[in-house]
Amino acid sequence: MKRKLGVILLSGGLDSTTAATLAVQAGYDLIAVTVHYGQIHSREIDAATRVADALGLRQEVVDVSFFRQLAWYSALTNPDRFEIPEGRVPEDMTADIPITYVPMRNTFLLSLASAYLESQVLNVLELEGASPDSVEAALFIAANAIDYSGYPDCRPEFYDSLAETLRLGSKIGTQYGVPFTIETPLLQMTKADIVRQAMSTGAPLDRTWSCYEGGVAPCAKCDSCLLRAKGFAEAGVTDPALTAE
Amino acid sequence: MKRKLGVILLSGGLDSTTAATLAVQAGYDLIAVTVHYGQIHSREIDAATRVADALGLRQEVVDVSFFRQLAWYSALTNPDRFEIPEGRVPEDMTADIPITYVPMRNTFLLSLASAYLESQVLNVLELEGASPDSVEAALFIAANAIDYSGYPDCRPEFYDSLAETLRLGSKIGTQYGVPFTIETPLLQMTKADIVRQAMSTGAPLDRTWSCYEGGVAPCAKCDSCLLRAKGFAEAGVTDPALTAE
Repeated sequence: MKRKLGVILLSGGLDSTTAATLAVQAGYDLIAVTVHYGQIHSREIDAATRVADALGLRQEVVDVSFFRQLAWYSALTNPDRFEIPEGRVPEDMTADIPITYVPMRNTFLLSLASAYLESQVLNVLELEGASPDSVEAALFIAANAIDYSGYPDCRPEFYDSLAETLRLGSKIGTQYGVPFTIETPLLQMTKADIVRQAMSTGAPLDRTWSCYEGGVAPCAKCDSCLLRAKGFAEAGVTDPALTAE
Repeated sequence: MKRKLGVILLSGGLDSTTAATLAVQAGYDLIAVTVHYGQIHSREIDAATRVADALGLRQEVVDVSFFRQLAWYSALTNPDRFEIPEGRVPEDMTADIPITYVPMRNTFLLSLASAYLESQVLNVLELEGASPDSVEAALFIAANAIDYSGYPDCRPEFYDSLAETLRLGSKIGTQYGVPFTIETPLLQMTKADIVRQAMSTGAPLDRTWSCYEGGVAPCAKCDSCLLRAKGFAEAGVTDPALTAE
């Protein structure tokens, strides 16, 4: 049986927690990478750490504050300059890519996750002496193409191309013949699908945090809280985070 | 005539300074991105800023310290654990990729540079109202395949694949049909070729810094100083940095 090494981008929200749980259950020796952008509140990072603990994952937390300065043309990185449109869930597949698109966000996040994954795989190959045939390497990202239709970096053809680029640009891909796969288990799921999947696999949803605000409890008013509540309502499930201590 | 927008990864060394000069002379409206890894000495960043000033470039300096933590399997990011081999310039094309390879370094650096370039291009398209047909977007990197033969992320097939990935993952590529090109003007040059190219184009070499040490003057002993000196010697030119104030 192959040794399955994986790195997941874990924010501590509903989606990435569900994806992490699926990866662990699929047999991956998984490590979590949590990025932060120098937020004032650390509620999200705390949630990611609690999720990683619940799943028994090693976690690396990294400060990528500088990325806002570079990917500046977006309402998410530059809210003073660009307005977040009302009704942030675009339904019209033919519409322009919205201003909430963050330039190269997923390319950037997966490139740094791949650097970590390649380091882990090289360690197993070169220091532990594993055979290249016995190792698999997968990057997990909880991207979703249903709720955010139209983002170019949430499409399968983008992930396929990136996986090939990572193979060509890496030592594990070119010297050892170990390709990267990019796993997007939630790509075609609705929020209700994700909730159902999370509940059936026992994902530690009580530890997750989706709210944009930094309060003690979720605000229940922001877009993220509303989207999450809609998902639980459609799945007919009570959100465990609302009753957690 | 097309408006040529470019971003260059500028370290302030001989190679990236030469590449920047070539890009400016090719008519690019160029911006410099300088990354640092939390170095103790800022001599390199100072040099990059002085080069950017000499070329009239806007510069963004960003702290990517976290990258060492992720790309840990390398003698360059983790010198306590891995030894830098003597004679660091591999001549044997069939040899294994050396331990000085930094996992996904160029993928990572170009992904963050591309986020900035896409932001600049979106600004020109959406706020200044330029036609997509009138704009070109290029990333410049002073990668070299002669002195560091064997690095997978210094090969043309890697850059071609990455350019296609950036197109597929971006708003400018998919909505506006503006592709990214990745320009590697020094890829096939020897160090002597680079010195000759730099001298003939008037690159501000007096402002560059290649030494690994943080002294007032270059140490003339480290690998980087030696490689630079060899290039100048072979080109038959006196290094302007050695006589600069």
